Amino acid sequence: MNRVRAAPSKGERPRDSPVCDAPMTGTIAQLPSAVRAPDARRPQIVIIGAGFGGLSAAKGLSRVDADVIVIDRRNHHLFQPLLYQVATAALSPADVAAPIRAVLSRQANARVIHGEVTGIDSAARTALIGERRVFYDHLIIATGAQDAYFGHDDWATVTSALKSIEDATTMRRRILIAFERAEESDDPVERQRLLTFVIIGGGPTGVELAGALAEIAMHSLVRDFRRIDPKTARIILIEGEPRLLSGFPPRLSRVAEHALERLGVQVRTGVKVTDCDAAGAITTGGRIESRTMLWAAGVIASPAARWLGLAPGRGGRVPVLHDLTLAGHPEIFVIGDTAAAAGPNGRPLPGVAPVAKQEGFYAARQIAGRLAGKSSLPPFRYRDFGNLATIGRKQAVVDLHWIKLTGRIAWVVWSVAHIYFLIGFRNRIAVAINWLWSYVTYQRGARIIIGRDEM
Amino acid sequence: MNRVRAAPSKGERPRDSPVCDAPMTGTIAQLPSAVRAPDARRPQIVIIGAGFGGLSAAKGLSRVDADVIVIDRRNHHLFQPLLYQVATAALSPADVAAPIRAVLSRQANARVIHGEVTGIDSAARTALIGERRVFYDHLIIATGAQDAYFGHDDWATVTSALKSIEDATTMRRRILIAFERAEESDDPVERQRLLTFVIIGGGPTGVELAGALAEIAMHSLVRDFRRIDPKTARIILIEGEPRLLSGFPPRLSRVAEHALERLGVQVRTGVKVTDCDAAGAITTGGRIESRTMLWAAGVIASPAARWLGLAPGRGGRVPVLHDLTLAGHPEIFVIGDTAAAAGPNGRPLPGVAPVAKQEGFYAARQIAGRLAGKSSLPPFRYRDFGNLATIGRKQAVVDLHWIKLTGRIAWVVWSVAHIYFLIGFRNRIAVAINWLWSYVTYQRGARIIIGRDEM
Repeated sequence: MNRVRAAPSKGERPRDSPVCDAPMTGTIAQLPSAVRAPDARRPQIVIIGAGFGGLSAAKGLSRVDADVIVIDRRNHHLFQPLLYQVATAALSPADVAAPIRAVLSRQANARVIHGEVTGIDSAARTALIGERRVFYDHLIIATGAQDAYFGHDDWATVTSALKSIEDATTMRRRILIAFERAEESDDPVERQRLLTFVIIGGGPTGVELAGALAEIAMHSLVRDFRRIDPKTARIILIEGEPRLLSGFPPRLSRVAEHALERLGVQVRTGVKVTDCDAAGAITTGGRIESRTMLWAAGVIASPAARWLGLAPGRGGRVPVLHDLTLAGHPEIFVIGDTAAAAGPNGRPLPGVAPVAKQEGFYAARQIAGRLAGKSSLPPFRYRDFGNLATIGRKQAVVDLHWIKLTGRIAWVVWSVAHIYFLIGFRNRIAVAINWLWSYVTYQRGARIIIGRDEM
Repeated sequence: MNRVRAAPSKGERPRDSPVCDAPMTGTIAQLPSAVRAPDARRPQIVIIGAGFGGLSAAKGLSRVDADVIVIDRRNHHLFQPLLYQVATAALSPADVAAPIRAVLSRQANARVIHGEVTGIDSAARTALIGERRVFYDHLIIATGAQDAYFGHDDWATVTSALKSIEDATTMRRRILIAFERAEESDDPVERQRLLTFVIIGGGPTGVELAGALAEIAMHSLVRDFRRIDPKTARIILIEGEPRLLSGFPPRLSRVAEHALERLGVQVRTGVKVTDCDAAGAITTGGRIESRTMLWAAGVIASPAARWLGLAPGRGGRVPVLHDLTLAGHPEIFVIGDTAAAAGPNGRPLPGVAPVAKQEGFYAARQIAGRLAGKSSLPPFRYRDFGNLATIGRKQAVVDLHWIKLTGRIAWVVWSVAHIYFLIGFRNRIAVAINWLWSYVTYQRGARIIIGRDEM
């Protein structure tokens, strides 16, 4: 039975407390469940998106006397940097995801809404979730990015992307099914096509995917088949720039390239993809026959610019001022992959987790300062601690600016850093144990095919 | 490049060795990849289904000089007894699934085909996978059972079943989304409907689901919501028979019922469901408004009887002789949930894992004996070691016939037995650690909503 609780217990907010929704006017008094007068209303801070930026902002507001409302269309925060390990069967989806409600369950001023924002009415200060309206005094837009195919949206159907849990399990299924079909095929041309994996994009995700795929083919699957030899699989990594990992120093790019080649990966830099179909890719270096093409090339910001009626900048990003707010709207912050914030050299900041997290904390501190009547903070400055990427087992490249690491020590730094930054004690344990197990046995625990698709 | 290996390494079969497929004739000589003459052909044993029965049979044939071919439409063996823990967010899919190829990778005479059998041509001794034909000298049908709705197939769309990984993640999504929608609903009637969970069927699966759901509502979610109190969720367990767990001694049924009631579950025995729709169930005890109905009531055998052109017995099962073969077809064994094998009292054996496993080993020994020219075994006899079911944390009922256990000791026996019988070292470790974590924290690690559906 649904009883309203008699008295809230210690440390909890009363249930059925004022709802954050506001029909047009921006006050809450008209709502049936509103129990406090508008003048007693606490400021309402709405955060759209519970990625690295949104969660940092929410946590940064934990001591603020305001209602913090986090809206996400997913019920989980996703640790994107390890998503490729779900796609390559090393980890389970739940290992790299944390329920947003669980992350914020002990933050008494935070509330989570599971819904998809469809627009923003900045004049009425409301976020729209379909028919529903959520009023804000301060808004933080942290809706991230999605895969972009450089104007070739049809490539989305023949390649596998890697942005969500569903993407990762689909990619896993396609990789595993390619080996299954190759085992059953009597046609040598088709068999080679099935055993050719093309990874488009040589950034950290592409490099890490290529290394993991090589490991699967060389080690994990090697005893599983009777007619094919998984070691004969071709893994081709394509990068349009002249070198892999263009965000890293050139020396580390070379290390990564050599490490991949030692694993059997064919690295093709300075090569661009001009077309994709279900049987392969056409590149500036010729056609590659392949049934499995993995997309790690480009992203575009979420449609926040359209919601705000603004002309998007490069990559669909929303132009922001030095304090991450919108020009003319000091109450609206845009952070993370959605924002076109400029770095110290004037170039846009990269779409990586540390940028989003620092921007989230900055927006939270800025809002907390305003509510406390303090003067505003100096402009946002990104503190770049460095870059990391791993290449299969025992090899990684780490650029901490003051020191550059490669080989096994870099791999240990990469592993420790990723476990440290994972959210949730359970996930840290689960990932550490899965890695230890994979390291010792060369096996991949999550090698299951779930669902079906047309390909 | 796809190179045929120069020489097989120790302990491995040569790749590209004779294919098992036979186009119509039942010989393999006509196939392009056949390299041995028909007279030198090793006997071919085909096992359809890699559940408990099929895998037991395959392992029982590991030392036989024959080709063992395991066909399954899934790439994984599923540990069904713990599937309810995936549906209730305690475990991840990969924790209760093991890749079939990995299970059999070191069995040199075994080969796995990933495909769905569509029929059997018993005159030509071939199993059909669509257009493809796989010849057998001996056939073991171990294709299990699927959910049955007592002639009301439309109930499948409004209830959640629990037979596959996809079923389990769908059930998990619906349970979690019901709480999410209740949190957002302003309509008290709808809110109560969303917070009412009906479990149809009071066998072990229904009892274990009810216990796990009660734990989620009472403990795991209790701090996550701001407007609803998950503790007010109603969990209703409906059983048509006069008592729960009808396969157990009556005293243990009473213990289970009282334990569930202490957890807040409403147990309704002797009540039958007469209709279901998207907003609730009509029972012989009145209508229950609910948005989430979980089906744990009935199963029907896989369509093997139809493949064989036989009239199915009770529950769609295939009638078999005392040696588990088909009358007139000593080369065809039917085992597990697909077979209507009679127990010592003449009643059909229950559809549980130990029956399937013992039948699989029996069929393997019978075939091995025949190939060695030995006389056939005495009729199959099921050794019943007992029944186990758990009810939330620290409570279970265990009937080992010579002793009956309840309470914490039964719960320990249940936990140890399930970890022991899990296939694969990695899965044992993963399940043990997840359970330990859940036990200590009262949390459920896999509380993520994946995918969407219409409901």
